[in-house]
Amino acid sequence: MNNFMYANPTEIIFGQGMIEKLKDVVPKAARVLMIYGGGSILRNGVYDQVKAALSEHTVIEFAGIEPNPHYETCLQAVTCIREQKIDFLLAVGGGSVLDATKFIAAAASYTGDDPWQILLDGGSSITQALPFGAVMTLPATGSEMNDGGVITRAATQEKLSFTSPHTFPAFSVLDPLTTYTLPTRQLANGLVDAFIHVMEQYLTDQHQALVQDYMAEAVVKVLIETSEAIIHQAPEYNSRANFMWAATWALNGWIGVGVPNDWATHAIGHELTALYGLDHAQTLAIVLPGVMVMEKAHKARKIMQLGRNVFGIDAIDDDALITQTIAAVEAWFHSVGMKTRLSDYQLDATAIDAICARFAERGWQLGEHRSIDAKRVREILTLRL
Amino acid sequence: MNNFMYANPTEIIFGQGMIEKLKDVVPKAARVLMIYGGGSILRNGVYDQVKAALSEHTVIEFAGIEPNPHYETCLQAVTCIREQKIDFLLAVGGGSVLDATKFIAAAASYTGDDPWQILLDGGSSITQALPFGAVMTLPATGSEMNDGGVITRAATQEKLSFTSPHTFPAFSVLDPLTTYTLPTRQLANGLVDAFIHVMEQYLTDQHQALVQDYMAEAVVKVLIETSEAIIHQAPEYNSRANFMWAATWALNGWIGVGVPNDWATHAIGHELTALYGLDHAQTLAIVLPGVMVMEKAHKARKIMQLGRNVFGIDAIDDDALITQTIAAVEAWFHSVGMKTRLSDYQLDATAIDAICARFAERGWQLGEHRSIDAKRVREILTLRL
Repeated sequence: MNNFMYANPTEIIFGQGMIEKLKDVVPKAARVLMIYGGGSILRNGVYDQVKAALSEHTVIEFAGIEPNPHYETCLQAVTCIREQKIDFLLAVGGGSVLDATKFIAAAASYTGDDPWQILLDGGSSITQALPFGAVMTLPATGSEMNDGGVITRAATQEKLSFTSPHTFPAFSVLDPLTTYTLPTRQLANGLVDAFIHVMEQYLTDQHQALVQDYMAEAVVKVLIETSEAIIHQAPEYNSRANFMWAATWALNGWIGVGVPNDWATHAIGHELTALYGLDHAQTLAIVLPGVMVMEKAHKARKIMQLGRNVFGIDAIDDDALITQTIAAVEAWFHSVGMKTRLSDYQLDATAIDAICARFAERGWQLGEHRSIDAKRVREILTLRL
Repeated sequence: MNNFMYANPTEIIFGQGMIEKLKDVVPKAARVLMIYGGGSILRNGVYDQVKAALSEHTVIEFAGIEPNPHYETCLQAVTCIREQKIDFLLAVGGGSVLDATKFIAAAASYTGDDPWQILLDGGSSITQALPFGAVMTLPATGSEMNDGGVITRAATQEKLSFTSPHTFPAFSVLDPLTTYTLPTRQLANGLVDAFIHVMEQYLTDQHQALVQDYMAEAVVKVLIETSEAIIHQAPEYNSRANFMWAATWALNGWIGVGVPNDWATHAIGHELTALYGLDHAQTLAIVLPGVMVMEKAHKARKIMQLGRNVFGIDAIDDDALITQTIAAVEAWFHSVGMKTRLSDYQLDATAIDAICARFAERGWQLGEHRSIDAKRVREILTLRL
């Protein structure tokens, strides 16, 4: 196990009816900016629940955060914060709203010249941020209990991430009932996104960190066992609760401490979203099987461990176990209705050229061995045509 | 899954050589009280490492915290804090030192008349506490990442516990190298203590909280898989690191949120320690198999899940699976050198009478169904003669 230092201070407020706790956990004297997206919270009753809980607070609203939230929109929210003398932010929605709120919290307190710098340096220039909490309605990103976010600059189609100890939510409310109205596509995206968050922290070298390994396996077992109910059956409380809580644990940091992390699948996927508008999880489901095949020289032992401990595969030899495990992962993506090929989205070698050009331009060398450069990305994506 | 609210803000500073980080995480201007026990840290080099790391801090020392720390000793530390104008505490040692430090931190800030009240009300009267951190040298109690402690009043042989959101360590340093000099008895105690911490949160009703269940199973799998190396082989880094990190997760609160908790084994065990001086873990290893047998009416499904998922037992029917699982737990205790009968410690029915009298006097009804009263304690302990 590697050395590490980590704290995760976010308070989790979990369960049915818990949105009402906002009245206690949002500071009474705060001027609150309630940040949300395109209006789904207006239709599913969450907006009304939040407003009722905060009926004795001062609440100003900022709507219109996009999926893959835009830098430009975040800057509008920063302007609003300054004009309205806001001192607490409340994100209400999914991972995009929460990611945007984290960036807004940091940008509103930023002392440098240009907040784009926050994204260029991955968050290391953040020295303070407005306090914020969240009502998370979409199990997927884990943003409700971590310090990271991903922001897209619409003008240049750049999608960049940041983390900072200053951008943990003070609290996150997770009410599984808020997921009942989610469309199947978003549920499938959430399952796949959470699954691949675990893979980015688990599917690396053998590193003898048993707690992290077995906790990672615990999280993906829950995702796999609940997925049939989540995608194909009417909403049921425990399934939704288990899915929601597993998605939080997939990326709250604790399974990734003391072990190598990969994140190449995410980096390649971000480019597919930025250039071609695919949903984040759709890109991950295309890329991961290619990463598993091309990087199996050093991921072999963990791929086999995944096959044995999570998928229950008992193969005749190591090669068969690896092949069957990669197939099982892709089959699970298909079982939740997720496509796994570039051609499923009418993308061809032209898309590969475009993405590899970006990798080459930035000189990126990704993965836990820094072995995934533009040439390797071409090999990975060529497998996924 | 049940509703819950929980935050665990403790920063973990994990790994070899990490004691030197104290120089950064202990506030520079603080007057620090370094609290420790009987001097094992003087022999194993930890004292010297701590003093070196804090060479530019103001450090006063308070030694002499006992195993099963005494209320009376804690009050002496409070007097020292007031005399020396201490404003930060640093626990260096095992769970007893850390438990004592939590109580001292609360008692030093206590505004009521008598700090014994903190133990009578289980910590609910704590409204503030001095900040404190820890260097934890004994994997066992999980005290390094939770808000609870257990204190013994020597004068009356009472052993009572408390928890409070104000008594989380600000940080805990966990260096697996500090465990290399632990005697086998303390290592075995730690393995068993951590195992039973998980059982108190896991071995209850079926409650469909899959993340908590599988994470609990992850923690005990690590304890079981590392125990052979821990007890019977020369110290090896990854085994010690995995054991140490698993012990933390056994009681940092996250596997116990949203599910029923039992804790009857601990309550019965505390009386055995208070009256007869057995090590804490020794008492737990005696009591747990009895609780499993006597409470199997409602614990049956979880006992079977433990047997299948952790011990890999495949039995011909439910009864056999339950019986074999309980036997497997007791066999694992034996494998680490832990005895499991009252008679192993020359205790007989007289001891059962004494413990049941205390339960009857207090009117305790314990366990997740409040089904464990004095009469049931007698049945449980009679099985363990």
